[in-house]
Amino acid sequence: MSGETKYLPLVVGESFELERPSLKDNSADWDRLIKHLNRRGFDPISSQGIPLDRIKSISSTVRKRGFSGRAILAYVIDAWDIIEIGDSKSSILGAAFDLGTTRIAFYLVDLLGAKILYETSISNPQIPFGEDILTRINYATTPEKLRQLQLLLIDAFNSLMVRVAEELQFDTNSIYAMAVAGNTTMSHFFLGLDPSHICREPYIPVVNNFPILRAKDLGLKMNPEGIVYVFPNVGSYFGGDAVAGILASGMHRQENVSVFVDVGTNAEVVLGNRDWMIACAGAAGPALEGGVVERGMMAMPGAIDRIRIDPETLELTYHTIGDQKPLGICGSGLIDLIAEMFQAGILTIQGKINTRIEHPRIVATPDGMGFVVAFSHETADGRDLIISDIDIGILLKSKAAMYTILNIIARKVGLDIHDIDRFYVAGTFGNHIDPQMAIRIGMLPDIPIEKFVPLGNTSGQGASMLLLNRNMFQEIREICAKLTYVELNVNVELIHEFRGALFLPHTDPSLFPSVKIPQIAKG
Amino acid sequence: MSGETKYLPLVVGESFELERPSLKDNSADWDRLIKHLNRRGFDPISSQGIPLDRIKSISSTVRKRGFSGRAILAYVIDAWDIIEIGDSKSSILGAAFDLGTTRIAFYLVDLLGAKILYETSISNPQIPFGEDILTRINYATTPEKLRQLQLLLIDAFNSLMVRVAEELQFDTNSIYAMAVAGNTTMSHFFLGLDPSHICREPYIPVVNNFPILRAKDLGLKMNPEGIVYVFPNVGSYFGGDAVAGILASGMHRQENVSVFVDVGTNAEVVLGNRDWMIACAGAAGPALEGGVVERGMMAMPGAIDRIRIDPETLELTYHTIGDQKPLGICGSGLIDLIAEMFQAGILTIQGKINTRIEHPRIVATPDGMGFVVAFSHETADGRDLIISDIDIGILLKSKAAMYTILNIIARKVGLDIHDIDRFYVAGTFGNHIDPQMAIRIGMLPDIPIEKFVPLGNTSGQGASMLLLNRNMFQEIREICAKLTYVELNVNVELIHEFRGALFLPHTDPSLFPSVKIPQIAKG
Repeated sequence: MSGETKYLPLVVGESFELERPSLKDNSADWDRLIKHLNRRGFDPISSQGIPLDRIKSISSTVRKRGFSGRAILAYVIDAWDIIEIGDSKSSILGAAFDLGTTRIAFYLVDLLGAKILYETSISNPQIPFGEDILTRINYATTPEKLRQLQLLLIDAFNSLMVRVAEELQFDTNSIYAMAVAGNTTMSHFFLGLDPSHICREPYIPVVNNFPILRAKDLGLKMNPEGIVYVFPNVGSYFGGDAVAGILASGMHRQENVSVFVDVGTNAEVVLGNRDWMIACAGAAGPALEGGVVERGMMAMPGAIDRIRIDPETLELTYHTIGDQKPLGICGSGLIDLIAEMFQAGILTIQGKINTRIEHPRIVATPDGMGFVVAFSHETADGRDLIISDIDIGILLKSKAAMYTILNIIARKVGLDIHDIDRFYVAGTFGNHIDPQMAIRIGMLPDIPIEKFVPLGNTSGQGASMLLLNRNMFQEIREICAKLTYVELNVNVELIHEFRGALFLPHTDPSLFPSVKIPQIAKG
Repeated sequence: MSGETKYLPLVVGESFELERPSLKDNSADWDRLIKHLNRRGFDPISSQGIPLDRIKSISSTVRKRGFSGRAILAYVIDAWDIIEIGDSKSSILGAAFDLGTTRIAFYLVDLLGAKILYETSISNPQIPFGEDILTRINYATTPEKLRQLQLLLIDAFNSLMVRVAEELQFDTNSIYAMAVAGNTTMSHFFLGLDPSHICREPYIPVVNNFPILRAKDLGLKMNPEGIVYVFPNVGSYFGGDAVAGILASGMHRQENVSVFVDVGTNAEVVLGNRDWMIACAGAAGPALEGGVVERGMMAMPGAIDRIRIDPETLELTYHTIGDQKPLGICGSGLIDLIAEMFQAGILTIQGKINTRIEHPRIVATPDGMGFVVAFSHETADGRDLIISDIDIGILLKSKAAMYTILNIIARKVGLDIHDIDRFYVAGTFGNHIDPQMAIRIGMLPDIPIEKFVPLGNTSGQGASMLLLNRNMFQEIREICAKLTYVELNVNVELIHEFRGALFLPHTDPSLFPSVKIPQIAKG
C-alpha cells in the first residue's frame, strides 16, 4: 500500500499525476483516476459507495487541475473511498471521541504525523436531561426529544472541534475522519436511534454494527464528506466504548488470560485472551463517578482523591486534585476513605460507622452517622465535608457489584480470578485508585499489586488507534465475534454473591489473606 | 438462493418470521434481521451501503410488525440491499428504459411473474434542444441548462411510469428497480454529468461505470429507495445501449464469431464471440432515422416503409405503416427506394438520378433532380413526396459508413466480413429493413439472407433481461472487459474505404456477386 506515511492511517493522501487523456487512452475521467489509484494499491475503490455528486465534483476537479493533484482516501472497511481532491500540503486530521454518559473526551489526531495533537474533555450536555442513562431514555420518548438529545451531542462535538481548530489554527475541513466510542445508549443517541428497548428486558439495541456515515449526514463540522465510524456494540450493556477499550488494552492479542475492567457509569469486565473472551457489565460505577454520593464529584480540581488515616491517632490527611480547597470527594478518594476508616476500626465489617468510638470527626447527621473528611474552615464552600453511613452503603454496593461480576465471570470459564495474569484497569478510575486500597475494601481481588495495569481512558485510546491504524477494523471485528456477553441482570447467582461481597472486605475473609482485619471492626 | 420465484430477478421478496428477542438471543433488531436474511442466502447484505435513515425505519417496522413481514431485497452487484419491509402480497415491478437520442422506450416488467406487462415509447423531450446529440451538448454549457436537459428526461420517465400505473392500476411505489440503457451522452444527461468532452477529441466521458443510484436521489416516481442502474459505457461512442444490445443478442456467450449491428442515431458494430470482442461506431444512422433527409421520418404510422418499382414499367407501389396516407419515408423505405431505383436503372452507380430517362416521377427540384415517391393527391399533406439527389447522397453516406465500419472491424481481426456466422441486426432498423435491399445498395455485405437475424430493440431487451436476471451484472462486466473499442474518427483507412463504398453497390462489384448491375446504371 502506498501513501505518504509508513503508518496505516484511516485516511491517507496520495499525490497523482495521471496520464493525460488521448486517443490511445480514452478512459473516462473518473475511471482514469480509479484505475490509477487501483494500481497504486487502493483497491477496491468503493465505486458503489461514492455518491454521484462526489463523482461529479471529483471528476471535474481532476480535469480542472490538469489531471494531477492529491487524492484524500479513506478506508471504509474492505474498500477505499475518495473523499476529495485537494492540495498536496494540507494536513490530514482525525477526531477521536470517547462519548461517555457523564463526560465526552476529544482527541485531535494528526494522521500524517501519527500523533495526538490535543486532548480535552467536557461534560456531557445531556446531563440536565438525566444524570443517568435511564432518565434520558425515558425522556426521549418522541422523535423530537430524541432529536433534541442527539443535537446536544452533535453540537458538543462541533464546539470542541471548532474551538480546537481556532486554537491550533487549522481548518475543520482537514478533519477527514471521526471515530466515536460510546456505550450502547450513547451511540444510539448520537445516531438518533431509538434507545427505548435497550433498558427493558430482553434489552435490545436497534443496531449493533453501525454503518460508516458521512459527516454531512450528521451535521458535523468537519470535512462534510469525511467518514464517521461509531464503534459497534456487543449488546445493550456492552458498548463500543468497551470494545475500544479491549482494543487499546491489547488483551485480545495475548496468549495469557487477562482481565479488563472499565468503571464508568457502568462497570464492564472482560476476561479472556486471543482465543476467547467473556464479558459482562453491571451498574457498579455511579458511586465512583460522583453522581450518587452526596458530596461525591468527578475526579477534577477540588476533588479529594487521596486520604490517609493514622490508625493510632485517627489523624486524617488528604490530597485534592489541583491542590485546591476541597469541594467534594471523587471515586479514588472514597475508596481510600473507606479502606482507611476500616483499617482504623472506624468502620465495622458491615460497613457501618463504629459508634463506640468518640471522635470529633464522627458526628450524627440527618442521614444517620457521618464522618467529617474536611471541616468547614478547610473546604471551598465553607461547609463540613461529611460522608454518611448512607453514602458508604452506596459505595459498598458498587464495590460488591464489581467483585461479584469479576467472580461470576471467572467461574463461568472455570478460572479463579486470583489466577489471572494481568488485570487491566481502565478509565479515570484506573489512573486514580490505589489498588491496595481497592483490595482492602474487597472491591478488587487480593492479587499481587504488580498484576494491576492502569490504562487511562482506553475508549479514547482505542478510537485514536483506529484513526492511526486501519487494520484495527479487523481486530474490532474479531473482538466482537469472539466476545460472549453474559447478561448479569438475569443471573440469580448475582444476589447471593453480592450479599457476601457487601461486607468489608468480604464475609469470607480467606479470600483476602493480605487484608488485616482490625479487631475493633469485628464489632 | 431463496426467494419467491425460480428466476433470479434483480429484486426479490422474502417473507420472514424472526425468532423474537429474548434473553437467550438479544441481538439488536437490525442485526437480527440481517442474520436471518444471511442464513436465507442473502449474503452479504450491504450494511455499509444502506443509509442510516433506512436502517432506522426498517428496524422500527420489523418491531412494529412483531418481527415478521416481507423484506424487499435488491441485488446491487455482489451484495444485497434491503429496500423496505412490506406486505407479502404486493407486486414487485421493474422499469426498463431504452434511452435513445430520438426515442425513449419503456418496458414495465413484472419481476415476480417474470414477464413484460407493458411497453410503450415516446419521443425524447430533448429534441427541441437539438435533433442531434452535438447540438444538445453545445446547448448544455451551464449547470442550469444541463439540469434542464436532465429534468426533461426525468419528467419523461416519470410521466411514462405514472401513466402506466394509472392504466394498469398499480402503485408506482411497487417499482423497485430501474434499468436504463442509453448511449454515452444520453446516460450523462440522465445523470446530470457534463457531456462536453464526449464530443471533442480525445472524446472522454466523465464516467463509464456508473454507481447504482437511489430513485429518490434522481427524483424518479417509483419506490424512493428503489435502485437505478445505468448500463456502463465502453467509450464516448460506445454506450450502455450497445452493451445492453450485446447482452440481448447473446453473441458474447457463443463460440462462433458473429456481428452485431445496431443502427440508431449512430451505428454501432460489434464483432466477436465468447472470447473476444471488437467494436466501433460511427455516424451512419441519421439518414435512416428521418432526421436529415427532407421527407424522412421515424418508422411510425404514415411512414412509407416498403417500396417496389417495376424495372420494365417503372410502376411504383408502396406500403405505409398503419396503412395511412403517406406523410414521409422511413429508413427501410429509403433503402428500398434506392435499391429499387438502382435496379430499375433510375440511379447511376454514382447514386445520381439518371437524367437520360424521361418519366413523370423524375422532376427538377431546387435541390437538383428529384424522384416523386407519392404524388400530391396520394399524400397526407397534399404535397408531392419527393426524394432529391441530395437526400440520396445523404443516405449513400450512411450506407457507405456502415459498410466501411463493418469491413474495417473485420480486417482488424483478420476476418472477411463475408465469413461471419451470424449477423444480428438490432433496432427498428433491423425489424423493418429487407436485408436483400440493403445488400443491393451495398449497405450490408453480400452474405446469404438466412445469416441475418433481426432482433428488435435490443437495448430495451437487455435492460429488461437484467431486471429479470441479476446474473446479467456479471455478463455486463465481462462484455465491458472483453470489448476493445476502435475509435474510427481517427482511422485514415476510413476515408479511402468510404469513398469506394459510396457507389452502388460498391466500386468493386466483385464484393457483391449477387447484385445484378443494370446496364443503364453504368451510365
